[in-house]
Amino acid sequence: MAGLKLFSLNGNKPLAQRIAAELGMPLSPASVKHFADGEIQIDLDDSVRGADVYVIQPVSDPVNENFMELMIMIDALRRASAHHINVVVPYYGYARADRKARSREPITAKLVANLLQMDGIDRIVTVDLHADQLQGFFDVPVDHLKTVALFGRYFRNLKLGAETVVVAPDHSGTKHARQLAELLGLPIAIVDKRDVNGAAGVIGNVTGKHAIIVDDMIDTGTRVSESVGALQDAGAKDIYAAATHAVLSRGAATRLGKLPLKQIVLTDTIEMPAEKRLPNMQILSVGPMIGQAIELIATNQSIHPLFDLD
Amino acid sequence: MAGLKLFSLNGNKPLAQRIAAELGMPLSPASVKHFADGEIQIDLDDSVRGADVYVIQPVSDPVNENFMELMIMIDALRRASAHHINVVVPYYGYARADRKARSREPITAKLVANLLQMDGIDRIVTVDLHADQLQGFFDVPVDHLKTVALFGRYFRNLKLGAETVVVAPDHSGTKHARQLAELLGLPIAIVDKRDVNGAAGVIGNVTGKHAIIVDDMIDTGTRVSESVGALQDAGAKDIYAAATHAVLSRGAATRLGKLPLKQIVLTDTIEMPAEKRLPNMQILSVGPMIGQAIELIATNQSIHPLFDLD
Amino acid sequence: MAGLKLFSLNGNKPLAQRIAAELGMPLSPASVKHFADGEIQIDLDDSVRGADVYVIQPVSDPVNENFMELMIMIDALRRASAHHINVVVPYYGYARADRKARSREPITAKLVANLLQMDGIDRIVTVDLHADQLQGFFDVPVDHLKTVALFGRYFRNLKLGAETVVVAPDHSGTKHARQLAELLGLPIAIVDKRDVNGAAGVIGNVTGKHAIIVDDMIDTGTRVSESVGALQDAGAKDIYAAATHAVLSRGAATRLGKLPLKQIVLTDTIEMPAEKRLPNMQILSVGPMIGQAIELIATNQSIHPLFDLD
Amino acid sequence: MAGLKLFSLNGNKPLAQRIAAELGMPLSPASVKHFADGEIQIDLDDSVRGADVYVIQPVSDPVNENFMELMIMIDALRRASAHHINVVVPYYGYARADRKARSREPITAKLVANLLQMDGIDRIVTVDLHADQLQGFFDVPVDHLKTVALFGRYFRNLKLGAETVVVAPDHSGTKHARQLAELLGLPIAIVDKRDVNGAAGVIGNVTGKHAIIVDDMIDTGTRVSESVGALQDAGAKDIYAAATHAVLSRGAATRLGKLPLKQIVLTDTIEMPAEKRLPNMQILSVGPMIGQAIELIATNQSIHPLFDLD
Amino acid sequence: MAGLKLFSLNGNKPLAQRIAAELGMPLSPASVKHFADGEIQIDLDDSVRGADVYVIQPVSDPVNENFMELMIMIDALRRASAHHINVVVPYYGYARADRKARSREPITAKLVANLLQMDGIDRIVTVDLHADQLQGFFDVPVDHLKTVALFGRYFRNLKLGAETVVVAPDHSGTKHARQLAELLGLPIAIVDKRDVNGAAGVIGNVTGKHAIIVDDMIDTGTRVSESVGALQDAGAKDIYAAATHAVLSRGAATRLGKLPLKQIVLTDTIEMPAEKRLPNMQILSVGPMIGQAIELIATNQSIHPLFDLD
Amino acid sequence: MAGLKLFSLNGNKPLAQRIAAELGMPLSPASVKHFADGEIQIDLDDSVRGADVYVIQPVSDPVNENFMELMIMIDALRRASAHHINVVVPYYGYARADRKARSREPITAKLVANLLQMDGIDRIVTVDLHADQLQGFFDVPVDHLKTVALFGRYFRNLKLGAETVVVAPDHSGTKHARQLAELLGLPIAIVDKRDVNGAAGVIGNVTGKHAIIVDDMIDTGTRVSESVGALQDAGAKDIYAAATHAVLSRGAATRLGKLPLKQIVLTDTIEMPAEKRLPNMQILSVGPMIGQAIELIATNQSIHPLFDLD
Repeated sequence: MAGLKLFSLNGNKPLAQRIAAELGMPLSPASVKHFADGEIQIDLDDSVRGADVYVIQPVSDPVNENFMELMIMIDALRRASAHHINVVVPYYGYARADRKARSREPITAKLVANLLQMDGIDRIVTVDLHADQLQGFFDVPVDHLKTVALFGRYFRNLKLGAETVVVAPDHSGTKHARQLAELLGLPIAIVDKRDVNGAAGVIGNVTGKHAIIVDDMIDTGTRVSESVGALQDAGAKDIYAAATHAVLSRGAATRLGKLPLKQIVLTDTIEMPAEKRLPNMQILSVGPMIGQAIELIATNQSIHPLFDLD
Repeated sequence: MAGLKLFSLNGNKPLAQRIAAELGMPLSPASVKHFADGEIQIDLDDSVRGADVYVIQPVSDPVNENFMELMIMIDALRRASAHHINVVVPYYGYARADRKARSREPITAKLVANLLQMDGIDRIVTVDLHADQLQGFFDVPVDHLKTVALFGRYFRNLKLGAETVVVAPDHSGTKHARQLAELLGLPIAIVDKRDVNGAAGVIGNVTGKHAIIVDDMIDTGTRVSESVGALQDAGAKDIYAAATHAVLSRGAATRLGKLPLKQIVLTDTIEMPAEKRLPNMQILSVGPMIGQAIELIATNQSIHPLFDLD
Repeated sequence: MAGLKLFSLNGNKPLAQRIAAELGMPLSPASVKHFADGEIQIDLDDSVRGADVYVIQPVSDPVNENFMELMIMIDALRRASAHHINVVVPYYGYARADRKARSREPITAKLVANLLQMDGIDRIVTVDLHADQLQGFFDVPVDHLKTVALFGRYFRNLKLGAETVVVAPDHSGTKHARQLAELLGLPIAIVDKRDVNGAAGVIGNVTGKHAIIVDDMIDTGTRVSESVGALQDAGAKDIYAAATHAVLSRGAATRLGKLPLKQIVLTDTIEMPAEKRLPNMQILSVGPMIGQAIELIATNQSIHPLFDLD
Repeated sequence: MAGLKLFSLNGNKPLAQRIAAELGMPLSPASVKHFADGEIQIDLDDSVRGADVYVIQPVSDPVNENFMELMIMIDALRRASAHHINVVVPYYGYARADRKARSREPITAKLVANLLQMDGIDRIVTVDLHADQLQGFFDVPVDHLKTVALFGRYFRNLKLGAETVVVAPDHSGTKHARQLAELLGLPIAIVDKRDVNGAAGVIGNVTGKHAIIVDDMIDTGTRVSESVGALQDAGAKDIYAAATHAVLSRGAATRLGKLPLKQIVLTDTIEMPAEKRLPNMQILSVGPMIGQAIELIATNQSIHPLFDLD
Repeated sequence: MAGLKLFSLNGNKPLAQRIAAELGMPLSPASVKHFADGEIQIDLDDSVRGADVYVIQPVSDPVNENFMELMIMIDALRRASAHHINVVVPYYGYARADRKARSREPITAKLVANLLQMDGIDRIVTVDLHADQLQGFFDVPVDHLKTVALFGRYFRNLKLGAETVVVAPDHSGTKHARQLAELLGLPIAIVDKRDVNGAAGVIGNVTGKHAIIVDDMIDTGTRVSESVGALQDAGAKDIYAAATHAVLSRGAATRLGKLPLKQIVLTDTIEMPAEKRLPNMQILSVGPMIGQAIELIATNQSIHPLFDLD
Repeated sequence: MAGLKLFSLNGNKPLAQRIAAELGMPLSPASVKHFADGEIQIDLDDSVRGADVYVIQPVSDPVNENFMELMIMIDALRRASAHHINVVVPYYGYARADRKARSREPITAKLVANLLQMDGIDRIVTVDLHADQLQGFFDVPVDHLKTVALFGRYFRNLKLGAETVVVAPDHSGTKHARQLAELLGLPIAIVDKRDVNGAAGVIGNVTGKHAIIVDDMIDTGTRVSESVGALQDAGAKDIYAAATHAVLSRGAATRLGKLPLKQIVLTDTIEMPAEKRLPNMQILSVGPMIGQAIELIATNQSIHPLFDLD
């Protein structure tokens, strides 16, 4: 893959290393400084003239710092005559601000898309967008990778048996649960926490079954916590939580640590600091999938095979 | 409202008349011809210099003809020095093509948004978008009107009693059902037609209750038909179907006509041809709401009051 | 020509087959569905990543359906990472709406150009534009192919003899007539149907001569009909009509069928339905010319040689 | 007309004065300097914040200097917070470069339109464009004024009698001749200088008649000269030449001075230097028409009445 | 000033209050939340339909948070149908990244300008840009306010006497020093710290004189510290430091606190936290000047009078 | 370098020949005509399909003619399907109009950048911009070549000895002087012509030393003239003037010819007409540097090595 260059900013360097390893190529050097006055400065150490560049940066906490690092990097690459600028955003921040839920709100997920495109990106590679419609916020190609096969392989290997049910933590999350359930050949259930009487219940039969709660992200952990409560009330056996994006904002790890979860299965789209890591956490790496996607994209092949279970 | 002009294209002239009546002003004259070779020609009969123009046109069947009428009209208005071009699209066609469900699909709902914006619109006023994220497909203001209060008032007046349940015809439609249920203080149920065993079931208690199936549109009628079957199997009493957009594509009216529905409650966002009209149909007009919205917008007032039930 | 892919939409599949045959390559598969509600859905069956794509689609009747097919296809190709998107529009619909003839008219030919460019095309290949100025409606390259050599070769082979005159059906069409006349070394005449006294006359000597009426398109056939009348009045012998674009809108074929025309020579830029085909029609294919143009463009060669008579 | 400001650059200050006089308002002061190194500097002496500005500048010889004056003025106005920037371009230079006549030519008339729009104009007011399609080169409103009524009134007052014919100097100019002929109720004739035998002839009867040669511009004067010769050969009596734009490039005045023309009727869209003025020249001013147009535009009225003869 | 609305984000609320006080109008309410995951959410509490909005936000530390607050606010305002969006950026962060000093650097000051314009601002009001060329990074109007008269009035009132010299801390800062010196009728001197021998010297006579060091900002304080040293070596008497933007990044206040400065005169373009405030600091408020500028802009008057000393 | 094509317009053909010689390739033929009416017409004689084109044109006197030649050429290249359009602008005209020095001025240097980018350039290669911030006026890559090493090598070879000082003709030009001084290991001095008492003086020791006045351009020669006077008053020995851009507007050569300058060292970024050439002028060619830069750019190598002294 002559002419391809990989860069990592500060968002998730371990993941970038895994992607580079999968591709068998080094990360190109760039210096990213945060000055005492809060400004960011980026210098590219090598020429990128004519190169097809992939910049790896999740828009995770610190969200605005990471986003501006990415924007400034793109500006530097464009001015330095990079041929194609591909951004790899394993976690797309502000994804939940994708509509005006009330009057006079911004749609920040669209703003982020507009800014990236204005800055001159040629493509975005991302993972498990909060809503599929976010693809339409872009006019450049979006390569939308999905982790469902990754989770599918993981849970298949756990051999939990047929008495297992995949659980959506609320109605809006049924899509994720269904996809995993179909892959594993399991039924689904839904936690209905917005019921008329206010109490969270479970729709579907979970009594005496293992339960896998599936969501696209765990942020504060409140939704997982409520789901665990409802599943326990409904008589579930072992409970697993699975989510792609380990947002784990302030207090989430503590909250999760108190729950009777057999396993919490996450991916490394967001770097996990040591202090948030719990004994029952399993981190699946999206590095190989992203690495393979880059290779397929760079050689003009379909990325469709990445979505197969086997 | 000096300087305001209303135009209607061919998509839904009766609705345009109702909007004009609400505003107490006439529709401005424009000639829209479809030539024998398939091309459309539009002439504006009066000057629109400096006017704040509202063009009323749903992108309903014939979808592409109606859309091109709108695009050509906008071009004519812009070149004729209209001050502001507001498009009123009561039904946003192609709304379901809002994401790449499979590889190599277009996102036609975004294409439609891009084309309207490229053509120079200043605002779109629309009703009950298929997904809220479509607001983010635009960078100009979107005034997104909702019919839930309209349906709420209608069903409240029916006095069906507390033994009524609002039913979502599948999981993705729960949002619409919940909003109406909350307004009426009723519980909801969900038709789960994609269950593992393939049969459509009902989640939630409907036995012996009246059921109101709520969706954003009725297209082929298949989904309503399946829902009615599931509700009957589950022992529901009177069944009502309610939907904003009466797409009713080929065969839908026949299919609906055979169903044991007490009422089918629709709106006039799409013009209903006489041959599709069934005896048990009730058509609520969005004309007053759109007319009031235009008045509020034109006088720089918040449209929020339109969303109240009373 | 590695990396080149040809697609045809529904506008003119026989012509697309001829172009593909000339290039010695197959048409790539794509599914284009028109749903019962009037919406169009397109799926590309193969990957187009990194491909130089040519999409063949005249904007002919049904004009708006064909145009929207093309727009949606371009959206799909762009999102699917095609490298270059070239549209081949053998007949450019709305070409006559190229100026404001009256106040407050649209300029739909420009709108069409704007929309195609907004959608991301890299090039348009088209044939015999109604006015040369339409090239300037685009900022991307326009490869404007001309059929004059095609007609030149055809009429040269007819060996009509020196007593032949090329006739423009009105003043605005003299350019087309002159080009053919120059190629064949023949004089021209002009039908002056907007004379002060209202009757159509012929300027130039046609008495006892064969006459070839030349125009860029035949739409309703009225102009040809008037020209034939004037030529007969002026004593012409055999009369031929030649035009690139067989628009032939409602009633045109019937009208033409009643005229004493020796031959009606057209091309296949627009697909001719069987019911419009007359015994005295000759259809010249632009397929070889377009195929050769694509080959020259794809290999970065000048298309100039295509315009030579021999 | 509060908030309206008129500016003139160096292209045609006498015309700007006439326009200002018609409007009864002064030209606003601006300093336009051409430095010794060839650069232009413009300073606006008064505030234009919130003003509706009209800048009067034909793109006539020196074409590039005048065009850059206009572009720089627009930049200054935009940065100085003008509300609307309207450019009044009585003569649109580069208008004949409106298509690729040969391979690899620019379309400079479109380039000029793109540059003006990129610079932020809100409207262009222009007079007798070389081709009507140039309107479509713009996406902002074009107010296209026509002088045909001006010439019509002038020649009507000459009372040349019914034995007069309006003459187009070649086929492409028939549109202008027809419009004047229709207004005056006269027949037309055409000079056919590209005949097969090479000699210029006259199509139509001019023998013993007065002839008015009509064109949109007189550039080198060659076309008028050839037309006069052909008309004399054909036995015309008094010959008049009429054209909107007095380009009169090097040698043209001398060439015209030798021709047996009764009158040469021109307008002041381009300033006529004293050394080019001939005794038989009549200069009609477009100042009143442009002044009235600005007044109608500024007060949001249709400019249509300007095109009437009376 | 009907229709005008002022908003403040979190960057500098005290300054926003002073601006509002000057204008005699309240700040409009908006809620700006920073979530635990680092994302920002903004809600406008009142309608802004048709309003001319001014948003006050310096892009100071935390630079990226403040900048993203501003970007998200603009998105919200645009979608909420604000008529004009004016951003008031008293301190333009990233201003020093205004060129590629080395290969492959970004030009972040231009990126910031591009992003603001892409987001839809109509105008930027800013104070003492690091380089005047930054005005050219924008295509919308820039109202560039200058504090030189503010400092001029301050030092004039100090009555330091004629034996005072204005000192530029290095060559690139001479412009600021000259402007103040001219206003006060004083000579200037320059600290030449990049001399061949490496030691900082003073060019110009400062012996026995009071010295006013003038710069556009104090960031780390190093430059002031070196200048004080050089001035002391050169025999200066009382030394004052004056700068518009109190960046004062980590350690700066401590460094300044140790210097023998008579006064440090700053403005409130950046909010000064209590812990950075030194006893010898004087803070001049730009609030009145910005408030007056907004009033002049909103009433379409020239802001030029603001730059006068008296 | 297959696929690379070089074109020269009329601005500086000798320099273009030197660049072509350095690259060992011919200039491609193009015809550039200036018509008698002041319009420019350009025809490309060869195909440029798929070519990487470099167009060489300084924007020097006649500034507006040269600029429009360049703009029209770019339009022709884009429409003729050039792959990449690189403009080589050795002298960037209007560079001093890079900010609003007073109210209501244009920023013409930005206008020029906007126009070039709107026209579709992919890159600009330029030499010694008046201010580095002009790089930020572009969003496409700017390859900013510097002549300091060229002058460094020249003066090193002169072996003027250690008793030499590099002189900036005013404060704003110290950057250029410092760069050359650092390269040669010499001290600098500054001509301070805006001193309080009005007379130009010299800051720094020049008595008995050779002096090299360094500036980016010599326009009217006034600044050099004043500097020479000040240096003579201060007791300098041999005085040299060095500048990149030989603007030399009207009267400059005469003014320079009267000065006691040992040498005037210039480059050929602007073509020097014979009548301006003085006996003591030395012209260094930037041709080799630009030629090498094009080769490095075309082969995707860093241009950094060009900036080394050896």
